Amino acid sequence: MVQAAARIAAFVHRTPVLRSQSLDRWVDARVFVKAEHLQRVGAFKYRGATNAVQSLSDADARRGVAAHSSGNHAAALALAAETRGIPAYVVMPKNASAAKQAAVQRYGAEISLCDNTLDARRAELAEVLDRTGAVEIHPFDDERVIAGAGTAALELTQEIPDLDVVVTPVGGGGLCSGTCVAVAPIRVIGASPHDRASTVADGLRTGCSARTEAILHEHNVEQVVVDEAAIIEAMRVVWERTKQLIEPSAAVAFAAAHASSLDGARVGIICSGGNVDLDALPW
Amino acid sequence: MVQAAARIAAFVHRTPVLRSQSLDRWVDARVFVKAEHLQRVGAFKYRGATNAVQSLSDADARRGVAAHSSGNHAAALALAAETRGIPAYVVMPKNASAAKQAAVQRYGAEISLCDNTLDARRAELAEVLDRTGAVEIHPFDDERVIAGAGTAALELTQEIPDLDVVVTPVGGGGLCSGTCVAVAPIRVIGASPHDRASTVADGLRTGCSARTEAILHEHNVEQVVVDEAAIIEAMRVVWERTKQLIEPSAAVAFAAAHASSLDGARVGIICSGGNVDLDALPW
Repeated sequence: MVQAAARIAAFVHRTPVLRSQSLDRWVDARVFVKAEHLQRVGAFKYRGATNAVQSLSDADARRGVAAHSSGNHAAALALAAETRGIPAYVVMPKNASAAKQAAVQRYGAEISLCDNTLDARRAELAEVLDRTGAVEIHPFDDERVIAGAGTAALELTQEIPDLDVVVTPVGGGGLCSGTCVAVAPIRVIGASPHDRASTVADGLRTGCSARTEAILHEHNVEQVVVDEAAIIEAMRVVWERTKQLIEPSAAVAFAAAHASSLDGARVGIICSGGNVDLDALPW
Repeated sequence: MVQAAARIAAFVHRTPVLRSQSLDRWVDARVFVKAEHLQRVGAFKYRGATNAVQSLSDADARRGVAAHSSGNHAAALALAAETRGIPAYVVMPKNASAAKQAAVQRYGAEISLCDNTLDARRAELAEVLDRTGAVEIHPFDDERVIAGAGTAALELTQEIPDLDVVVTPVGGGGLCSGTCVAVAPIRVIGASPHDRASTVADGLRTGCSARTEAILHEHNVEQVVVDEAAIIEAMRVVWERTKQLIEPSAAVAFAAAHASSLDGARVGIICSGGNVDLDALPW
């Protein structure tokens, strides 16, 4: 983790830790928000992608990198590759928003569109890997990506050393896994939406891999599940009280903190991202 | 100004100065955002209201304070009065949003509702002043309010001493007047909407008083006028690129900076507020 932090330090923003009295009252705790919505590409995902891309040997790097993703990992990998000066190939579902496709294109990645099923995405990615010889960088099932993701919590605990608990959203479990490793033995809460298939928290419409599942289990992560109304309420509360534009997936962690009895504890929240479609707000 | 800053220091947030590479590119300048949307009550107005309320003699303070306002001055005056432990009486138009009325009430002010015409608001305020004996605190035509408003720019220049220009929105001209005095002889741009009567920038639906007009004239403030489409575009750009939730009136200053040929200059922008009706976004 410390190695990952050193490897990516020159490329990522050291994001601020935000405080809000009004948010404290709403959560009923002392909340320290690690502002990864202010990270490059607007999400913590840039840390993992950068760590993976910067870990490659020169020979591997020259082959380029590839992934399928409809969201922040796509943009993060594209910018991480551009920063190293190597090609990136991203498979995106046809229904990915124009804004997200534009971001990936702006960073110079080659986009392959496919149907929005996991099978179609995997098949298209296999074809891309075969054609280009690129190295696959999985969005979470990858030790380098997990270590990179964990650097956000590492910075948080360096700045606020006496936290009682840290809350992260859980989709594929990469962020939560990296956070566990970074902050152990501090208690970690993993927050996820009740309905993973159709949640408004579009970054969390996936499940853990065996690798991330095992890390979460090993660290006794407490799972807190929140429903859609709670996610939307939390997102709106954060917008109104802190004036920070966070995405629904990030709001899941705030909703879980609000729903937990934290009783004045010192609570770190990894605010995972701020990429929102402003034409389709959930209220 | 320095006296005002000392008087309010214990009550106001010293807001951060934000930077964004993406915003720099859009403005074509090096932009330093004085983040008054992160001020208490979400607007610079809290500085002026606090300076005025804290300037009162104990005898005057006991009478309470009053103003008519549909917006941020109402909430700012209410909290400033609550902080000093004195009554506040606020005249608001009946069509002021429920969220704004709730904020004023939360801070313990007494609200009188009236029709939304300047005559009706003045008449209702005269009645309130007569009934309560409270001291009127005008939202901008008041030396104490102007000095308080100017402390934002004072802090900005203390932190970034070598600015080439500072941009503020102009409605009643209190913020721009205070800014001129604070930063002189640095160049100041005053940004206002083309159509003051019906602009989306609801905090700027008013004109300067003789007092603020004279201060702006004396300091050779450059007036830049922007249309509604430019305001809405600027608001959206700031939201998407900086993840900061700013209100339309604040966006007017960003729109004016974007419209001006600033050519890489070091530009301070007073980001005046972040109180937005999330149910009625302008795009």
